[in-house]
Amino acid sequence: MIDLRKHCIELLESRGVSLEAIADCAVYLQHAYFPDLKREDMIESVMDVLGKREVQYTIMTGIAIDKAADKGDIEDPVLLKMLREDDGLYGVDEVLAYSICNVYGSIALTNFGYIDKDKYGIVGQLNKKNPDGSYPGNHNTFLDDIVGAIAASAAARYAHAQEK
Amino acid sequence: MIDLRKHCIELLESRGVSLEAIADCAVYLQHAYFPDLKREDMIESVMDVLGKREVQYTIMTGIAIDKAADKGDIEDPVLLKMLREDDGLYGVDEVLAYSICNVYGSIALTNFGYIDKDKYGIVGQLNKKNPDGSYPGNHNTFLDDIVGAIAASAAARYAHAQEK
Amino acid sequence: MIDLRKHCIELLESRGVSLEAIADCAVYLQHAYFPDLKREDMIESVMDVLGKREVQYTIMTGIAIDKAADKGDIEDPVLLKMLREDDGLYGVDEVLAYSICNVYGSIALTNFGYIDKDKYGIVGQLNKKNPDGSYPGNHNTFLDDIVGAIAASAAARYAHAQEK
Amino acid sequence: MIDLRKHCIELLESRGVSLEAIADCAVYLQHAYFPDLKREDMIESVMDVLGKREVQYTIMTGIAIDKAADKGDIEDPVLLKMLREDDGLYGVDEVLAYSICNVYGSIALTNFGYIDKDKYGIVGQLNKKNPDGSYPGNHNTFLDDIVGAIAASAAARYAHAQEK
Repeated sequence: MIDLRKHCIELLESRGVSLEAIADCAVYLQHAYFPDLKREDMIESVMDVLGKREVQYTIMTGIAIDKAADKGDIEDPVLLKMLREDDGLYGVDEVLAYSICNVYGSIALTNFGYIDKDKYGIVGQLNKKNPDGSYPGNHNTFLDDIVGAIAASAAARYAHAQEK
Repeated sequence: MIDLRKHCIELLESRGVSLEAIADCAVYLQHAYFPDLKREDMIESVMDVLGKREVQYTIMTGIAIDKAADKGDIEDPVLLKMLREDDGLYGVDEVLAYSICNVYGSIALTNFGYIDKDKYGIVGQLNKKNPDGSYPGNHNTFLDDIVGAIAASAAARYAHAQEK
Repeated sequence: MIDLRKHCIELLESRGVSLEAIADCAVYLQHAYFPDLKREDMIESVMDVLGKREVQYTIMTGIAIDKAADKGDIEDPVLLKMLREDDGLYGVDEVLAYSICNVYGSIALTNFGYIDKDKYGIVGQLNKKNPDGSYPGNHNTFLDDIVGAIAASAAARYAHAQEK
Repeated sequence: MIDLRKHCIELLESRGVSLEAIADCAVYLQHAYFPDLKREDMIESVMDVLGKREVQYTIMTGIAIDKAADKGDIEDPVLLKMLREDDGLYGVDEVLAYSICNVYGSIALTNFGYIDKDKYGIVGQLNKKNPDGSYPGNHNTFLDDIVGAIAASAAARYAHAQEK
């Protein structure tokens, strides 16, 4: 059987997202509670999140839509325009992100809401746009939220693990 | 500005789903509480659901993925295979459906869970598959759940409206 | 540290709900896919669900509200009336149930919607009411949904585990 | 029939939360997009949120649990301790808050995550605790999240309304 975690890590890397960049966001979210936390301490939690089936399917689906937007492989012109401009009221990207966070409970959801607005690190880089609202390179309508959700979930898992 | 409700009704019809078929499912879900309920009484609720922005975006996105599966316009072979076979553990379709139901509260979610398993009417027709698990015509991985969610939400809206 | 799983099992038993009765509901939900499944095979999944912190907190909170309804320890007369009659539009009980299911993904949510309407086994027993809508014994506004959600989640966990 | 919106406004006021304080939080969340937005412009959105049945039930339930924690009217000593200290891993309060936000879609959820961590205005005041983690006055385990969710939802409604 194919190793879906490895498959997803490769998909993320093909869009410029490393495990380390995700771990850095997760560390940032836990910094106030664990000031000495390091990137290395968080990699295990990121890997745990990437090992969940529900998360893997969401990553594959979100990146597939972003790639279809890149290539114009979306028949519906109304949707294509929204995806290419990451329309502020389009919320399906956040819906997918929440499905990742849900697995890790309410702390993950709150973490996600914070980093989605605060745009730390790789989450902010994936959000960079031209002055006219278009993306300079790849379309990352889904990817920025998915990466934020993985980081938010890894941070929540770390917090829960420290209590046990 | 484009009329997104009209756009979505046309998208649904292009995949073989009529307003009447959705209304029939919604009536079925409320039958135990309102035995005299008719299709005509439910159309207003279906139209209300289709008027919500969140619902419209979800319809457009789900149908776009189904169409990409039809045409093979999905680069990732792992994901394409799952979409074409509606893999039982793939749950992103249900996640999108829940985002429709959430707007109408917990009754809509319960209704959706029921019709998704019971497969009444058009929901069942969209689920028809060949003995090997492949779809006989269009791939409806997302569409069956979206239609179930619209019906579940219309039924919930009707129930709430009767109490006021 | 207190064993919260044991604490929750005792709380459930104090309200007439056994592990076996929950396992029976979970078996029922998987019967179509695994016809030979037995209660004993499902106990491990039920125990896994009861081991999650998010689930434990929800059980404790839901049962606390039901007990407060029993004793009249709720100041707000509007809320007390709704809890004692399990008002059909009151949906906070389902909201708590969904937070259990969310941990186990979309299959758990669909399972919950089904058993919540179908009312198999202990879920149905907890729902029994007098002709005037009041409960014959304890108020189980929250408990029936929580038990349905634990069974739905255990069934989803079992389904996922078979695929690995 | 009792006016449930009025009932909820009175409940909120009895715990020190005014409509104006909620509107201020909602304005804060929209400030980056609408710099000239004033409290008065937001009151209509706050009132719309408070008019939803799902929201009203959540407010009544959350405040009832907080009041039970004040009075010690919770039989389960494990739960009572967690509520009185707003244990960081207890997430049922956020679960209820999400059920409010869900009605207003994904923007509301993101807004909530932000204000829940940022703790602006009344949300921060409700969170004030003694150095030992206990509350100085009323226990607001649920109320702070509910108020944040109402503000987040009102802000999302305002954003959506401007686009139409």
